[in-house]
Amino acid sequence: MTDLKAIDQHLQQTQPKHLEILKELLRIPSVSADPKYSDAVAAAARSVLETLQAAGLKTELIETAGPPLVYAETAPVPGKPVALVYGHYDVQPPEPLELWETPPFEPTERDGNLYARGATDDKGQVLTHVHSVAAWIASGQPLPMQVKFVIEGEEEVGSEQFADYLARPEAAEKLACDVVVISDSSQYAKGQPAITYGLRGIAYFELHFKGPKQDLHSGSFGGAVNNPAIALSKFLTKMIDEDGHIQLPGFYDAVQPLQPEERANWAGLNFSDEDFAKELGVDALLGETGYTTLERRWGRPSFDIHGLWSGYQGEGGKTIVPAQAAAKISFRLVPNQTPAEVAEQLAQFVAENTPPGIRIEVVDLHGGPGVVVNPQSPFIAAAQKAVTGAFGKPAVLIREGGSIPIVSSMVERLGADVLLLGWGLSDDGAHSPNEKFNIADYYLGIRASAHLWQHLATVAK
Amino acid sequence: MTDLKAIDQHLQQTQPKHLEILKELLRIPSVSADPKYSDAVAAAARSVLETLQAAGLKTELIETAGPPLVYAETAPVPGKPVALVYGHYDVQPPEPLELWETPPFEPTERDGNLYARGATDDKGQVLTHVHSVAAWIASGQPLPMQVKFVIEGEEEVGSEQFADYLARPEAAEKLACDVVVISDSSQYAKGQPAITYGLRGIAYFELHFKGPKQDLHSGSFGGAVNNPAIALSKFLTKMIDEDGHIQLPGFYDAVQPLQPEERANWAGLNFSDEDFAKELGVDALLGETGYTTLERRWGRPSFDIHGLWSGYQGEGGKTIVPAQAAAKISFRLVPNQTPAEVAEQLAQFVAENTPPGIRIEVVDLHGGPGVVVNPQSPFIAAAQKAVTGAFGKPAVLIREGGSIPIVSSMVERLGADVLLLGWGLSDDGAHSPNEKFNIADYYLGIRASAHLWQHLATVAK
Repeated sequence: MTDLKAIDQHLQQTQPKHLEILKELLRIPSVSADPKYSDAVAAAARSVLETLQAAGLKTELIETAGPPLVYAETAPVPGKPVALVYGHYDVQPPEPLELWETPPFEPTERDGNLYARGATDDKGQVLTHVHSVAAWIASGQPLPMQVKFVIEGEEEVGSEQFADYLARPEAAEKLACDVVVISDSSQYAKGQPAITYGLRGIAYFELHFKGPKQDLHSGSFGGAVNNPAIALSKFLTKMIDEDGHIQLPGFYDAVQPLQPEERANWAGLNFSDEDFAKELGVDALLGETGYTTLERRWGRPSFDIHGLWSGYQGEGGKTIVPAQAAAKISFRLVPNQTPAEVAEQLAQFVAENTPPGIRIEVVDLHGGPGVVVNPQSPFIAAAQKAVTGAFGKPAVLIREGGSIPIVSSMVERLGADVLLLGWGLSDDGAHSPNEKFNIADYYLGIRASAHLWQHLATVAK
Repeated sequence: MTDLKAIDQHLQQTQPKHLEILKELLRIPSVSADPKYSDAVAAAARSVLETLQAAGLKTELIETAGPPLVYAETAPVPGKPVALVYGHYDVQPPEPLELWETPPFEPTERDGNLYARGATDDKGQVLTHVHSVAAWIASGQPLPMQVKFVIEGEEEVGSEQFADYLARPEAAEKLACDVVVISDSSQYAKGQPAITYGLRGIAYFELHFKGPKQDLHSGSFGGAVNNPAIALSKFLTKMIDEDGHIQLPGFYDAVQPLQPEERANWAGLNFSDEDFAKELGVDALLGETGYTTLERRWGRPSFDIHGLWSGYQGEGGKTIVPAQAAAKISFRLVPNQTPAEVAEQLAQFVAENTPPGIRIEVVDLHGGPGVVVNPQSPFIAAAQKAVTGAFGKPAVLIREGGSIPIVSSMVERLGADVLLLGWGLSDDGAHSPNEKFNIADYYLGIRASAHLWQHLATVAK
């Protein structure tokens, strides 16, 4: 008979060590978007591998054409379900650096939080599962089920290498499992844990507008030629109307409508537009008309510009018609939209809206479909017990607006269920300056994960 | 009796020296827009001063709160008109540096041209007048009229210090003149000199759109808040309609319509839209409907975006709702628009078009009204003789789209006429990478300038 209390006690004692291991990982600037960090990305892989090794798991570094996959597994437990923990050791770029109170890759404790790029997304959350398995092994109690790990290094830029690996023949066996466990999301609110049953997808593009062969004097040429920055502004404006509807042809055709039950459930959640706006520092919210803020964030597609650049950005005034303008944009998708279809819709939109005097180039950066799983699954019921045991309160069932593009591929390829257990908070600043992870939640996440293996093991195989 | 032939001969012999002096000045990166070049701006002032001194003029460095004014004068000639040469020793920023074939501040001869930032705008053109006066003095012939020089260091950023100086009581006396001579424009075409009788004005602004207090994860927040980059795109789109009409309230109220005679004159100039588009590397031209390309460039207001920035501009994909977006914009003005009125119109437009969730800040960077002078003036007739003598062909009378914001202030304050004699070419790349000045035109400009003093001296005072 396993004794969760003994595990909990062991976890209590190892907290300082767990915090130290997280800090060590956070010191590695594993930014996958920028090739200049590629050594650090590789170093982060080795660090995660060594932590899994030290915990007593069988580990393997799976080489790819990009950053390696870190694989690990505990001993098989016949007759019991198998869990595969998926996560990532890469992080978003830290820019703009000047907005960080303490340097992004020097983890710093402040107000009960640990501040660093990757703290919540996803290094801290990945380690909760590593430490929980380590605790079972260290406490001498046999893990009641087999737990596998696959931790990748390209999640923030589209998981291309992991997608390639998934398609390999050996992947189906090596990663074979009944449920994929992912902690790369948030609790609903401070003190209110959540289990996430849906994620949005994403289709991410870069647009390049090319006008005159070089920058031109805006006095001599202004008014005579199409200004690429104006053309880009007009193009982006056409992409989304005043009601927040995306104008790509056929964009909404595949959109799975929100179910009346989930709209009712979400309406029952404690959410204030006013508090939310205040938290973000804006005087008003904005989005697609006809939907609440939670519906817009979790269950409706959205369009965003992530980056914009053209011409002169230095001090003072330079008077040019810039030769080029560019934007990074993405569409967040919901089931059953696919990035491939959206790419086609964008190509058609570009063809129909290319203005005179401009050539448009589209770069397809990355994408992945959204996913919604059955909120009634026995795995979710088991997770509910684990979360309640650790946090002292049952989780609410929510969807999230973020994307983990590879999730739907894993579900499809491995024929597994998926469990999205977020230990973060919505104000953690994932992708923003001053990213943090609450240290108490880090420990609670480790504890909930330790309980999870106990409860998941009871699900009929 | 003066002997222009002797002067011409002297100029022939001093060509190598004139080229060397220009190169030396071009090596100084006197970018006025960027404070990091302020030492170079000061060094350029000293260099121009020393050249004028060496030519035998009485010189003076007039200190201001910014870059100094270089002043110089030849001996007074009673009963004869006085000319004031105005020009500038500052240059546009050289960015984007990677597009320069040779470094912007290492003047390089290629195909009969001298390539460097400032070659045509305005260092080369300023020196034509310095060398012409030097030639008169060196050849031992008395200059038939007094020539003064005022060369400033902030023309590219709005001439604020020179405007302040002009308002000083002593300026009216020191700069007293009958005609202001400015070479900061172009010939009509290669081999076709021009005299310019009109310039557009400018009103230049920076817009800052501020949204959420920090960058947000576009998955968790996309669709819930106004994206400042989208808001900026929509705002800029509203600024100018599909017919190229600027939408600021009352923007066209003060616009002086083009005169039927000048429209007819310009229609008679040799100009091909097709060749022009080809030269610029675009498949089509674009601008205000109802006007020809020359009319749009020379005689109608225009709106341009000079710079645009928001969010992430690095490699790969970062998925954020950026906290801010910004643009550098300007309006080219025609008589009788004023920058102050346009600033008010923009403020009203901002007030009427600020979207939810966004705060807009406007920075007024610089401005100056346009100017049109009487094409029948005796000074223009005298200049026509000088140009014909040097270039072997009479000049055509044109307007230009560029702005020399201080011109109208000088005309007003000094009660003088103005002569705009451009020795450049429209493809010189002023404000662009690979700026150049044709070396033969540099020498022709010096010669025309030497003849100019002879002919201007005959105009009745």
